[in-house]
Amino acid sequence: MLSKTHSKYIQSLHHKKFRDADNVFIAEGNKVVPELVQSKRFVCMEILGTKEWLQQHEVSLRKYYDGPLTEIETFELEKISALSTPNQVLAIFKKAEAAPAIIDKKISIVLDTIQDPGNLGTIIRTADWFGIENIICSANCTEMYNPKVAQSTMGSLGRVNITYVNLPTWLAQQEISLYAAALDGKPVQQFRNIKEGLLIIGNESKGISKEIMEMVTEKITIPKTGEAESLNAAVATGIILSHIV
Amino acid sequence: MLSKTHSKYIQSLHHKKFRDADNVFIAEGNKVVPELVQSKRFVCMEILGTKEWLQQHEVSLRKYYDGPLTEIETFELEKISALSTPNQVLAIFKKAEAAPAIIDKKISIVLDTIQDPGNLGTIIRTADWFGIENIICSANCTEMYNPKVAQSTMGSLGRVNITYVNLPTWLAQQEISLYAAALDGKPVQQFRNIKEGLLIIGNESKGISKEIMEMVTEKITIPKTGEAESLNAAVATGIILSHIV
Repeated sequence: MLSKTHSKYIQSLHHKKFRDADNVFIAEGNKVVPELVQSKRFVCMEILGTKEWLQQHEVSLRKYYDGPLTEIETFELEKISALSTPNQVLAIFKKAEAAPAIIDKKISIVLDTIQDPGNLGTIIRTADWFGIENIICSANCTEMYNPKVAQSTMGSLGRVNITYVNLPTWLAQQEISLYAAALDGKPVQQFRNIKEGLLIIGNESKGISKEIMEMVTEKITIPKTGEAESLNAAVATGIILSHIV
Repeated sequence: MLSKTHSKYIQSLHHKKFRDADNVFIAEGNKVVPELVQSKRFVCMEILGTKEWLQQHEVSLRKYYDGPLTEIETFELEKISALSTPNQVLAIFKKAEAAPAIIDKKISIVLDTIQDPGNLGTIIRTADWFGIENIICSANCTEMYNPKVAQSTMGSLGRVNITYVNLPTWLAQQEISLYAAALDGKPVQQFRNIKEGLLIIGNESKGISKEIMEMVTEKITIPKTGEAESLNAAVATGIILSHIV
């Protein structure tokens, strides 16, 4: 049985203000929680799961984690969950400091004002698939510790280094090729085997800001044969990476 | 001022049961509503918008639509909206019968048990980008008229023909190559300039069902260089289309 105070505390972590105050975040679900525990990037503070789930996962979790395993009822999980369909387990993790982004001799992703948490999470997951180690976010990107981000990364949050920076200032300091996803560039099929560079993805409706677009080395376009006005930011990221990596 | 009855009626359309009863659905947002009105695929029944939005769009909407334009306050829109951040306008449309899917001499998409409305919407948008005319969904895919689907298609719902079928039975009747997105196939880079076929995308966690996998001509894999267990279904669809189209 979860105390009222503890339940309220976890609910408070749905909000950035309270996550920031305690320097923690929550993650949920059968795939996400074990992956984040294993990744060791984030120190796990508590795992709250249904009896059945905890029984099934205790042995494997204990290899990486020796904190509290709190048994809760499904109705209690529904109360503390940030998801519309809660999924057997929720965990609290300490946030981690981003490591300095080392971008030499590899491809990294730069996000300019990505606002949708589901998009950020899916971009992190896609980056992880393609072995991208660093994502550099503009300061006004959605927060990586939003519960919906953790959810849509499907565990990749523990494997990609995510840094928030003042983007124009930071980009101005880099001596590396800048590739922008844009509607008026060269076809993505012309970019092959790129070994080093930053791939810049812009805001969901406004694209890349003018200030940043002016710094760009090359614009990359995904040729369109149909009618849609644009592609989803995460889909565009995946397509470009699949061609240039 | 929206009557209580009318407000409740629109709220009821967040649920499939009531959408089915009246054969209508709702769509929202500054991009989505005008695109669906213009597409003429769905008959628009009513547009409810803020005063400012209606003033700005009345002339262009009236080229395609002569039904009611209902002025509502922001707090009323918040009540009837199915979105977490409502966006100036909501409209009610009649559902449309799917046209028979003509799949000869082109690439079409087949979805096996796609459950997340955001994924379905993003797949429809991606299909529209690549000029795919038909999406064939298994009967247990999420419903195309879910408000979150319309939202994430960003208007493409009016341009792609979406049919729900008994998938194993339907596939067994087709004499065309079946390409499955799978983790154990040939690299996507080996598939170029495919002119005809069905691209099958499987469920978010279980992939393509065994029964359907047994009918497949070729399995297509997106080579992985990192650690993520899988890619988001919409991202995978976009990547494969960008290589094979």
